[in-house]
Amino acid sequence: MSKIENTRKNHYHPRCLVPSIILILIFIYKCEGDGSTYPAGWTRRAAKEAEAVAAISCSGHGRAFLDGLILDQRQSPICECNSCYGGLDCSQFFPNCSANADSGDPLFLEPFWMQHAASSAVVVAGWHRMSYSFGDQTYISQELEKHIRKLHDAVGNAVTQGRYIIFGAGSTQLLNAAVHALSPNNASSPAKVVASIPFYPVYQEQTDFFRSVDYRFQGDASLWKNYSETSTDRMIEFVTSPNNPDGQLNEAVLQGQNVKAIYDLAYYWPHFTAIPAPADEDVMIFTLSKLTGHAGSRFGWAVLKDEAIYQRMQSYLTLNTMGVSRESQLRTLQLLKVVLQGGKDMFEFGHETMKKRWEILNNTISMSKRFSLQKIESHYCTFFQKVREASPAYAWVKCEREKDKDCYAVFQAGNITGRRGSLYFAGDRYVRLSLIRSQDDFDLLLHKLNQLVYD
Amino acid sequence: MSKIENTRKNHYHPRCLVPSIILILIFIYKCEGDGSTYPAGWTRRAAKEAEAVAAISCSGHGRAFLDGLILDQRQSPICECNSCYGGLDCSQFFPNCSANADSGDPLFLEPFWMQHAASSAVVVAGWHRMSYSFGDQTYISQELEKHIRKLHDAVGNAVTQGRYIIFGAGSTQLLNAAVHALSPNNASSPAKVVASIPFYPVYQEQTDFFRSVDYRFQGDASLWKNYSETSTDRMIEFVTSPNNPDGQLNEAVLQGQNVKAIYDLAYYWPHFTAIPAPADEDVMIFTLSKLTGHAGSRFGWAVLKDEAIYQRMQSYLTLNTMGVSRESQLRTLQLLKVVLQGGKDMFEFGHETMKKRWEILNNTISMSKRFSLQKIESHYCTFFQKVREASPAYAWVKCEREKDKDCYAVFQAGNITGRRGSLYFAGDRYVRLSLIRSQDDFDLLLHKLNQLVYD
Repeated sequence: MSKIENTRKNHYHPRCLVPSIILILIFIYKCEGDGSTYPAGWTRRAAKEAEAVAAISCSGHGRAFLDGLILDQRQSPICECNSCYGGLDCSQFFPNCSANADSGDPLFLEPFWMQHAASSAVVVAGWHRMSYSFGDQTYISQELEKHIRKLHDAVGNAVTQGRYIIFGAGSTQLLNAAVHALSPNNASSPAKVVASIPFYPVYQEQTDFFRSVDYRFQGDASLWKNYSETSTDRMIEFVTSPNNPDGQLNEAVLQGQNVKAIYDLAYYWPHFTAIPAPADEDVMIFTLSKLTGHAGSRFGWAVLKDEAIYQRMQSYLTLNTMGVSRESQLRTLQLLKVVLQGGKDMFEFGHETMKKRWEILNNTISMSKRFSLQKIESHYCTFFQKVREASPAYAWVKCEREKDKDCYAVFQAGNITGRRGSLYFAGDRYVRLSLIRSQDDFDLLLHKLNQLVYD
Repeated sequence: MSKIENTRKNHYHPRCLVPSIILILIFIYKCEGDGSTYPAGWTRRAAKEAEAVAAISCSGHGRAFLDGLILDQRQSPICECNSCYGGLDCSQFFPNCSANADSGDPLFLEPFWMQHAASSAVVVAGWHRMSYSFGDQTYISQELEKHIRKLHDAVGNAVTQGRYIIFGAGSTQLLNAAVHALSPNNASSPAKVVASIPFYPVYQEQTDFFRSVDYRFQGDASLWKNYSETSTDRMIEFVTSPNNPDGQLNEAVLQGQNVKAIYDLAYYWPHFTAIPAPADEDVMIFTLSKLTGHAGSRFGWAVLKDEAIYQRMQSYLTLNTMGVSRESQLRTLQLLKVVLQGGKDMFEFGHETMKKRWEILNNTISMSKRFSLQKIESHYCTFFQKVREASPAYAWVKCEREKDKDCYAVFQAGNITGRRGSLYFAGDRYVRLSLIRSQDDFDLLLHKLNQLVYD
């Protein structure tokens, strides 16, 4: 009331209060929405709560989330600070802390979503999709499937016409589902699963961990080149393009009647690479994580040519998790709507960010002969319609000095946490630095790298 | 402007317009929220969209969802109708259609969530938890874990103090993760996985499907009773309590040093059974699906005594799906908040609904000697603090007539789709009828059953 009283006292006649109140009441009514089946405004509590949490200031070095920890005697969730920041509002910087260039946490896209707060938000009603299945008795949102096909058409990175699409909890679940589907049951010997060094360690870890009688990990693809040409055993090759860790546009190494390839195209988006042509492989796997940056949503999809493989992967998905969370599907749909409505916006944001990071990193590392970086060829990009600069997700760094045999340790001593080359079966002269993390992480990486290079 | 002009013309001096406009501007400002980091009102578009979809009338026999199919030239998602209803607004009833009493789709709780629209809604911001991990580097929301423990304490159905909790994509994922964790690697023979007939078919399907070298499904638990007492092989027994399909409070059949039990407590909630005492088993598995009715969220959890088993299950979760979707976790948290704030509300709603359904069904079936139903003993319920009536999730029906050897076919001929007893390894004299589906499905089941009983 104090504002109303002030206004009145300072300038106007008291009876002006009456029309004002009437107008405010009209405005309140309009502001409440026009629901009919449900009491109007049932979303209000949730909206208010979400806006209040978003308004918590974490000094630009952290964020508060709706499901963040609430400490005793407090009402609102705590700030979760970026690495090397702390304090209640993340305003404290710890200068001696190690730069985190470890996991491929794709937070470089977070600012894009903060800028698109209004269009990307989604309300989940309490009764939203409680059932096991959608209206057509599947585990898959048809609208989302339509949007995924539209997106591939718009970007031109994969052929989806006449292809089956299946959803998984991130590409993680789909990678093993594909191995399972491509391995014949009761064959005379288990399918041999291989990949080209350096490769993403999960391929081996997963294949080993689930200990199926039908498949076994057998290491480096190139060692099986001759064998595969004549073998009657099933061989399954993981092909990652662009490759994690080195960003190369890999192609399958093995050929032969019994060879099947799983194309992991997690990074085959304009953020990270030129798109020379739409991929058109039998088994292609994508993930939201490296497209929009939503790793936490655990949403991925496979594009498949063969109906039998599609059916086998579907059985896997059913018996493993009964499909993918409907909340993830709903949110992914909203995010893809924003991506599609924005034309090239998100990809320009992504590519600009990654290109700048790569340039700066490249310049810094080239100051010294101590380290070298992978070379990435320029390609014509059909999406941006020009030859474009490199913008890989990871720096694949080699320690060149004879004595620097453990490159990971060299970086660790320089207060930078990367990932050991040996994890990618490439030996310890290599280390992977993640470039797709938050701006804070990248800035700190660069700061420490400058010290290391001039050391 | 027309409303403002009207107000002015009818009653007041023109200069009153000025303070009104100022006040409206102040009100608009207040109405927009008090965001500081984000522009106020960023949730509004999402809220309006959700309310508009909720307001689509589907005649009480269906619902429209935010991610529902949008047909050409339309703006809003279509109505998805309950079984046996159709038409654009689900107002058409197909009287000759078969009653669906097949899957355990827990839609009996949907009206509860519609009644609690305001408290149960949740807004997912575009930048919500994009990272792979939470602030503490896990895949698990600590707030949600706290709420799960609180809920078990309030209901008194499980001991959680000093226990580990792990999340999975529904109990489905956790069942196999537990089998994997309890099976020793490289043992002389694979672990033997068993269950007591009649049992939930997924136990066998899953164990067979993943074809691990470390475990094998071996059928009925009772056949292994003597063997298990002295065997040095690992035996893993699934114990479902209350049991699916027959609602009995089962206990483990096997005993012996090398026997481990997985307690599937999906139905151990006051909707379906008396709670005689808190369960305190080594491995207990729960699912949101049968607690709040949100099968589509694919959210479950395990309560574990042993740290080594917890670690092994965590590795499984990591290599299988890298944890559970953050959207599911966020929504589950909001649903559990509503459940906890409501005291006994949801359980009273659930129990009342299920008790009524069981009574009516029981009365109908007892009209005829053609069919019999399982008997469920009364127990004192520590949650409701009284001896309570039976309210099982499923009717486990036996066809008593000599000639009715295929009970499923008898029901099918009567326009009722149940599930074959042979799926539960109990033979075809039995059929399972699901009682936890929507009210429409139950009403139709009853209608058809009346015809069948008086046939």
